[in-house]
Amino acid sequence: MNNFTFYTPTRYIFGREAESHVGRLAKLEGWRKVMIVYGGGSAVRSGLLDRVKASLESEGISHVELSGIRPNPTDDRVYEGITVARETNIDALIAVGGGSVIDTAKGIACGVPYEGDFWDFYCGKKVVEKALPVGVVLTIPAAGSEGSGNSVITRKDGLIKLSLRTESALRPKFSCLNPELTFTLPPFQTACGICDMMVHIMERYFTPTENVEVTDRLAEGLLKAIIDQAYVVMSNPMDYDARANIMWSGTMAHNGICGCGRQEDWASHFIEHEISALYPQVAHGAGLAVIVPAWMRFVGTSKPSKVAQFGRRIFGIDTSDDRQAVLRTVDMLKTFFHNIGLPTSISELGIDDHIDIELLVRKLHQNKGEKIGAYIPLSPLDTKAIYELAL
Amino acid sequence: MNNFTFYTPTRYIFGREAESHVGRLAKLEGWRKVMIVYGGGSAVRSGLLDRVKASLESEGISHVELSGIRPNPTDDRVYEGITVARETNIDALIAVGGGSVIDTAKGIACGVPYEGDFWDFYCGKKVVEKALPVGVVLTIPAAGSEGSGNSVITRKDGLIKLSLRTESALRPKFSCLNPELTFTLPPFQTACGICDMMVHIMERYFTPTENVEVTDRLAEGLLKAIIDQAYVVMSNPMDYDARANIMWSGTMAHNGICGCGRQEDWASHFIEHEISALYPQVAHGAGLAVIVPAWMRFVGTSKPSKVAQFGRRIFGIDTSDDRQAVLRTVDMLKTFFHNIGLPTSISELGIDDHIDIELLVRKLHQNKGEKIGAYIPLSPLDTKAIYELAL
Repeated sequence: MNNFTFYTPTRYIFGREAESHVGRLAKLEGWRKVMIVYGGGSAVRSGLLDRVKASLESEGISHVELSGIRPNPTDDRVYEGITVARETNIDALIAVGGGSVIDTAKGIACGVPYEGDFWDFYCGKKVVEKALPVGVVLTIPAAGSEGSGNSVITRKDGLIKLSLRTESALRPKFSCLNPELTFTLPPFQTACGICDMMVHIMERYFTPTENVEVTDRLAEGLLKAIIDQAYVVMSNPMDYDARANIMWSGTMAHNGICGCGRQEDWASHFIEHEISALYPQVAHGAGLAVIVPAWMRFVGTSKPSKVAQFGRRIFGIDTSDDRQAVLRTVDMLKTFFHNIGLPTSISELGIDDHIDIELLVRKLHQNKGEKIGAYIPLSPLDTKAIYELAL
Repeated sequence: MNNFTFYTPTRYIFGREAESHVGRLAKLEGWRKVMIVYGGGSAVRSGLLDRVKASLESEGISHVELSGIRPNPTDDRVYEGITVARETNIDALIAVGGGSVIDTAKGIACGVPYEGDFWDFYCGKKVVEKALPVGVVLTIPAAGSEGSGNSVITRKDGLIKLSLRTESALRPKFSCLNPELTFTLPPFQTACGICDMMVHIMERYFTPTENVEVTDRLAEGLLKAIIDQAYVVMSNPMDYDARANIMWSGTMAHNGICGCGRQEDWASHFIEHEISALYPQVAHGAGLAVIVPAWMRFVGTSKPSKVAQFGRRIFGIDTSDDRQAVLRTVDMLKTFFHNIGLPTSISELGIDDHIDIELLVRKLHQNKGEKIGAYIPLSPLDTKAIYELAL
């Protein structure tokens, strides 16, 4: 096991009406004026936004708004938010939404007190030392941003999608998680979220670090719970307990407990990010459902051991032959993704153009270096093979 | 799933030489004078105490000491610590040791700023609102106090052992976890610690709350990792990775992740506490190894479902008959405890006197109420039966 530090000072309020605590929590933090960041549409129609505002107002906390944040969020909205935040002199941000909204709020949070370009943090030029605090009301269990110190933003010119990782500077001060808010998520979006959280666990599971049984087992436990509850949620979207299990799994998947003491992989995320950066109509979770089985088949050929362990412990695959186990694991994973309505090949992604693999590979390694991933570090030839396997 | 809040703002520094960070961490917290609380013996002989002092001194942090804390720690040392802390005007406490040392430090921490008797918090008369901050250098993975907001202290007059639970007031600000510090733990103490952490998980696992798959699976994952690594540690006490897996499991077992959204049980702990309060020579972990199988056999008779699930998922028991599964689960658990050198009956506990079950039952329900536990609330008749099953 590698040395590590672990620090997760986010306060979680979980359950029915969790969002009604926003005002109290913001007051506890000493905030007096906040920026509410949200997407629009459902948060407005459902009355959620009004409830959040009422909760803040009841504690005497004023607000400004930044709305219309879209999936695969872009830098232009972050710049806009930074300008508004400076002009209005806010103390903090409250993200009401899913990962795109939270990640935009985090981009603004680190950008406001920084004199340079906030993008410096995302492309690795600078380390975040100061940031405005962020609170969250989660509506989509998927990205895990409600419990992580991470954020992913796409640069509009050049369509570069980069992720920023901080130990604690960008971890939300509090996150309100009400499973009822997810009852009305469309099935495809629910499934994309399920895939995203599963892959957050798998990116940590597939590691070259040996003898990390405790985190292996935590990861396997979460994955088994997600797969089990995914079937319940897909067949009964109003099942409170199943929605609750999925929601809390999404937070645990990405708050760091599955990564303690081990090198993490993240190749599949990087490989997928190039697709949803170039084709923003692709949902990140759907892109992952396409890439991960291809990645698994590729790495399982030369290093089958951990893939076979994954298959045996998650899917109960009972062959003692590691290579056979790899093939059956990939099949089981694809079957699961199909069963919950996800694509598992690029051809199913709804990209009308012919996909330009050469361009994807070139941008991937420009953005992320000559080799990507840790379980097996992948060269441009390797990642090209993975994109091709995913066709 | 029940509504819950979860807040674990402890900073963990895990790995080789973790204790060398104490000075830096204390300075980060702004502490200038601390009380080092420790047991004596091994922490002194191994040079650990000197290393901790040197780390503090290198950051200009001065200290006073409270030493000689013993297992099953008592209120007299807490009172003494409170007096010294007030006289010397310390900012914080640093516990160097296992659960007994940490719990004593926590008792002092909440007692210093409180005008009344610190015992008010332990017997439930008052809620902790203010406490001195606590830092930890852990030497015994067992109690989980390095990551919990809890503390257990025994009142010397009357031998009443009570536990205090806070959401975050008594969670350590930081905990330094170096697995190498546990290489020299005697096998019996290692085994007692393993049992204690397993039961911390089981007290949360056995719940009347339905549909809590995600926490069930996290709990099962931790338990499987502990059982697996326990055999490695017992046969090779210097195996760094196995010691590391056990140490981190002990923290995860009791930091609350296995209890989110579910009613917890804690009957076995309460039943055991009466034994180690009355017979302080009994190690808490050994007492639990005796009580838990008896408790499990008792509750499994009238409510076998969760015990059977436990046996199937942890030990791979393959019968579909729940009652058969209960019996085999109890056998498997006792066999595991025996294999790592623990007693599984009161007769093996080394209590020379005839054990006074009537007295234990009377004190248990005086201290903890007419009914104890949640999986099945237990009456005095029930707890008497459990003590008898454990004979």
